[in-house]
Amino acid sequence: MPYVNIKVTNEGVSKQQKQALIQGVTELLQKVLNKNPATTVVVIDEVETDNWGIAGEQVTELRKRQS
Amino acid sequence: MPYVNIKVTNEGVSKQQKQALIQGVTELLQKVLNKNPATTVVVIDEVETDNWGIAGEQVTELRKRQS
Amino acid sequence: MPYVNIKVTNEGVSKQQKQALIQGVTELLQKVLNKNPATTVVVIDEVETDNWGIAGEQVTELRKRQS
Amino acid sequence: MPYVNIKVTNEGVSKQQKQALIQGVTELLQKVLNKNPATTVVVIDEVETDNWGIAGEQVTELRKRQS
Amino acid sequence: MPYVNIKVTNEGVSKQQKQALIQGVTELLQKVLNKNPATTVVVIDEVETDNWGIAGEQVTELRKRQS
Amino acid sequence: MPYVNIKVTNEGVSKQQKQALIQGVTELLQKVLNKNPATTVVVIDEVETDNWGIAGEQVTELRKRQS
Repeated sequence: MPYVNIKVTNEGVSKQQKQALIQGVTELLQKVLNKNPATTVVVIDEVETDNWGIAGEQVTELRKRQS
Repeated sequence: MPYVNIKVTNEGVSKQQKQALIQGVTELLQKVLNKNPATTVVVIDEVETDNWGIAGEQVTELRKRQS
Repeated sequence: MPYVNIKVTNEGVSKQQKQALIQGVTELLQKVLNKNPATTVVVIDEVETDNWGIAGEQVTELRKRQS
Repeated sequence: MPYVNIKVTNEGVSKQQKQALIQGVTELLQKVLNKNPATTVVVIDEVETDNWGIAGEQVTELRKRQS
Repeated sequence: MPYVNIKVTNEGVSKQQKQALIQGVTELLQKVLNKNPATTVVVIDEVETDNWGIAGEQVTELRKRQS
Repeated sequence: MPYVNIKVTNEGVSKQQKQALIQGVTELLQKVLNKNPATTVVVIDEVETDNWGIAGEQVTELRKRQS
């Protein structure tokens, strides 16, 4: 019955990667807490880099400096 | 003053259906807890089916099997 | 498969009132969006009045003025 | 290490305004709680006015009456 | 930089199990999306069974029938 | 009408500090986005250090090494 929300920046996450996250988290909750996969819900939010801040700065700007 | 967040899959929810959810939840909180509708906030998130997992699987895949 | 999060101040919500909220929201989602109640999840958060602000003020202080 | 989520209606928030929110919240947490800006995360959600309800009504309708 | 929120019912999750969830999710995000563990944040919420509803019913009542 | 959720570790945040966060965030949203303070909602969550992970580790353990 767990509910898991994963927030990542919107930088090209593929459908297959999303599936891997959903499956991985569901298995983890079964392994660690014996939670029933049938009612485990996972929701992935992809957040624009303008809308994500770390250290007081938009990720958009952070990425420019990193590239 | 309550805050309610409703997350559903993005599968064609109409403006009228959203209005019905907002009104229904606001009335429910007034009826059950006597909360003032004037400050009751409802936020609806529509989540892509690739980004919603249940039972370790994307809803996109689940829908294919159901159709 | 919807997920609903209801946040209210922690001011004596009874177990029966919580049940009424859970049942009411679940029925609303079935009526409006034809969502299956079996996989509708509702989570209620009760927030201390010191931790809830409206209009720049803690609800704790607001309640003092209202009483 | 704080995590802050800001939800506003999607009504033309500019990149510069988002930056001001991220910087302002990060500085506030440093000033009030001495939190390290380096690990302060801020996520801004812009919500469609059809999906935001107050007083049992969609903001879309509220805005029509206000204009 | 991901943020993950895990919500489970408050039914005796040990400190070691929480550590296993935190470590497991952090590793998953590194493996699937190459996310830097140093800035991956995981927050676990333990929700009272009176406050968690599934299928229109409190988990508290569900557990009574299951025992 | 904004909704802001601030999550910090539960490490002795005083009532006055919570008030400063609520007031500061409300003022910031007025200054940056001209949002009406009357309907700005701020909710603060204090999370146990066992339940907060960064870099794959519980904050409880991180604090032991830092002290």
